[in-house]
Amino acid sequence: MRKSSRLILALDETDREKALDIADAVSGTVDAIKINWPLVLSAGPEMITELSRRSDVICDFKVADIPNTVHLIVDGALGRGASAVIVHSFTGSDSMKEAVDTAAGRGNIYAVTEMSHPGGKEFTAPNAEALALVGVRCGVKGFIAPATRPDRIAAIRKVIGDREILSPGVGAQGGSASAAISAGADYVIVGRAIYKSDDPSKVAGDIADEIRTVL
Amino acid sequence: MRKSSRLILALDETDREKALDIADAVSGTVDAIKINWPLVLSAGPEMITELSRRSDVICDFKVADIPNTVHLIVDGALGRGASAVIVHSFTGSDSMKEAVDTAAGRGNIYAVTEMSHPGGKEFTAPNAEALALVGVRCGVKGFIAPATRPDRIAAIRKVIGDREILSPGVGAQGGSASAAISAGADYVIVGRAIYKSDDPSKVAGDIADEIRTVL
Repeated sequence: MRKSSRLILALDETDREKALDIADAVSGTVDAIKINWPLVLSAGPEMITELSRRSDVICDFKVADIPNTVHLIVDGALGRGASAVIVHSFTGSDSMKEAVDTAAGRGNIYAVTEMSHPGGKEFTAPNAEALALVGVRCGVKGFIAPATRPDRIAAIRKVIGDREILSPGVGAQGGSASAAISAGADYVIVGRAIYKSDDPSKVAGDIADEIRTVL
Repeated sequence: MRKSSRLILALDETDREKALDIADAVSGTVDAIKINWPLVLSAGPEMITELSRRSDVICDFKVADIPNTVHLIVDGALGRGASAVIVHSFTGSDSMKEAVDTAAGRGNIYAVTEMSHPGGKEFTAPNAEALALVGVRCGVKGFIAPATRPDRIAAIRKVIGDREILSPGVGAQGGSASAAISAGADYVIVGRAIYKSDDPSKVAGDIADEIRTVL
């Protein structure tokens, strides 16, 4: 993933043609496109490959399983053309280590620690630091941390050193792209504000411009 | 899912033809077939539909995301023909509630609490009771609890009342089917011992016979 616009599109559109149209419109602007299981369930795993021809693809699969299954999922996603896979820390060190080992030389693993939705406060927030340390010890490329709470980006930065931070929650969820980058995020992840707009290319460009003002 | 053999096949085979052959061989014996993401990544989401013509299908997707994504995954899996989806509790009550609401009238949700691999001791085991209560409060059909530790099946039973318990870990991982049922499991989940054998139908039948001795 080149560190250019610092912008990642969360392509949570499940219609195949619409998803490809949006990818075509923004592939020159964003540094990567992040997809999730609903698109695979609706349009098939071939979408990973088709999108990877347009942009780096991050599979936000929030993998949370035993090591052997983690291996098969990461291997399958990278084999289809993904550049990175997002994995939960809370299933423990052996599962995370397996993800990193499987991706070695082929792609990157990003770890989920704290989650930004209300339910994330029940189990993930109280364990956020320990969850981040699982990722650090296992050698992940970076972490997902909510742009809706810039103080949490700064807090996680202290634990993870110079590893990358990818911040979702910008736009429709209320977070600010420039505030997230200023707080220490390496990339911001934007979904609905781009893919639901009438002009995804323009919106992506505007956000990239906003980010550039604080770099 | 009819409560007949009390046996569920974990079909962790990723080759499409082999998977369908095994499903054909055991569909008369097992109460359900459990699949996971690696099969979807290799053979496509259509496999859910094809297998659902042979047996009840449980999508062991270990869903662990924000409510809207949980909704899309559960909806997609049931729409493809699945009877049930397995969801993590640790992403909190709103995500679990969304899963249960999405499945209402169309299928069932089972909750993962404690996990049986070594990494499961780091975050899931210390929170096992609280994780089980998330499922109880949200109205899940049942829970996944490791057959490798029958004492844990008995412990979780105290928290969840008469909801179902599905126990993986029988066979290759060392758990005993009859011991798991005796400890209070409603179903045992068997994978490699069946699908990697030369005669899946016979092995499944033998395990079903073993279970019958303790009913």
